[in-house]
Amino acid sequence: MDIIHVIKIGGAVVNYAAQLQGFLKTLAQQQTTFILVHGGGRKVNEWLEKIGQKPNMVDGRRITDGQTLELAVMNYAGLLNKQIVARLQSHGRTALGLSGADLGCIQASKRTHPTIDYGYVGDIKKVNGEVFTDLCHRNIVPVCCAITCDTQGQLLNTNADTIASEVAIAVANTHQVKLWYAFEKQGVLLDVEDPSSLVPSLTKGRYSAWVAQGKIHSGMIPKLDNCFRALDKGVSEVNIAHVEAFHNFPHQLGTNIIAS
Amino acid sequence: MDIIHVIKIGGAVVNYAAQLQGFLKTLAQQQTTFILVHGGGRKVNEWLEKIGQKPNMVDGRRITDGQTLELAVMNYAGLLNKQIVARLQSHGRTALGLSGADLGCIQASKRTHPTIDYGYVGDIKKVNGEVFTDLCHRNIVPVCCAITCDTQGQLLNTNADTIASEVAIAVANTHQVKLWYAFEKQGVLLDVEDPSSLVPSLTKGRYSAWVAQGKIHSGMIPKLDNCFRALDKGVSEVNIAHVEAFHNFPHQLGTNIIAS
Repeated sequence: MDIIHVIKIGGAVVNYAAQLQGFLKTLAQQQTTFILVHGGGRKVNEWLEKIGQKPNMVDGRRITDGQTLELAVMNYAGLLNKQIVARLQSHGRTALGLSGADLGCIQASKRTHPTIDYGYVGDIKKVNGEVFTDLCHRNIVPVCCAITCDTQGQLLNTNADTIASEVAIAVANTHQVKLWYAFEKQGVLLDVEDPSSLVPSLTKGRYSAWVAQGKIHSGMIPKLDNCFRALDKGVSEVNIAHVEAFHNFPHQLGTNIIAS
Repeated sequence: MDIIHVIKIGGAVVNYAAQLQGFLKTLAQQQTTFILVHGGGRKVNEWLEKIGQKPNMVDGRRITDGQTLELAVMNYAGLLNKQIVARLQSHGRTALGLSGADLGCIQASKRTHPTIDYGYVGDIKKVNGEVFTDLCHRNIVPVCCAITCDTQGQLLNTNADTIASEVAIAVANTHQVKLWYAFEKQGVLLDVEDPSSLVPSLTKGRYSAWVAQGKIHSGMIPKLDNCFRALDKGVSEVNIAHVEAFHNFPHQLGTNIIAS
């Protein structure tokens, strides 16, 4: 096992069965060691709609009330997680679904904020990297969903991009780690509608300038902050790429994030 | 590790938070090795109702269409499983939630029946006992929900009583095993409304006679069939008991099932 690849599967991908299945088949067939991380936000919105409720978002972030938490746990830790695990198993890879509660692998605490009550949202306090590396050494694929829990047993909704970077950082204590964000775009795009505007590599300096100029905005900012944090904390390489580019995995693809 | 206790938590119990939490606290504090199995049928019915659908039952058995399967996976593998795992963790026991897909621990196939289409219902083909015993040896509590999967990656709804007995049988190949069905009644009752009609022990002969006389009927029949099958296949002891009786666990309680 030379390298552990931590791969985050984006929300839009996990909701399209055909694309997800192709991606999982591709991954399962490669002789690489990987940890998967997934969210699945759209599925929760679909279910809220089914029961006549609306997602409550403040500044692009979800407010997680009790009902939303229940649906998040049901969808992330239940439906999506088990679909991914079952698919990997069917392609001959031994897989294990995890929430942060399982094996105590990710400990979080309920977010506190001076003015906004985010509800049951968890900020990560500690990742037990040994749980993940131990599974990898036994040739088991950890499939980690975006649910964590606190020391009192309270389940919490947690950003999947952040889980991916924090897991990558924890595992990088003892192993060489590459972190990948796989989603429905080609990578970082200067024009979100134009795939040819792909930025093949992005330094922190250019990123800061582009954020100041408004060229990079909204959801890409926390994602890229996670990328740079991972590089700062010992992860070898970080890429953001289209899920279909993984047919060439693990060759470099999409946008390569560069620390300096 | 002298004995592995396989404990099935009944559907009514998992739906009452206070009772479930008391039970898990009691278990977590005891120095015993155990595997938990749970279903959670009522939760699926509640959700079907929320979206304006009705449970489809034939002869007391659920017909699992696509929507029902989705809700079963969401509730069993998601919400209930993670609530149990998080609770055990908060009491200092390391726990791991499992569906049959995880680690390939329970392989099933879609039920075929000459006249009834049960939908996405799985009959167990094989339990990988080593997955469970390996976790027990590492002092991890496996928490297994009533979802299995076939070799093609199709998730399937599977009777939790049957999962408990088949897991107990698989583990009994290499370890001494006691199987417990914990639920909301005192045990096998001759009058379901009268706790004092508890049958402290039940032999197969008496069971057959009572079934013929209609004294034991409906849901108790498949449960007891699972009990006798477990005894036939190497499980040392089988008991059916009220969840609150587990404060005295592992002393004998409820109805003790006797093979001969």
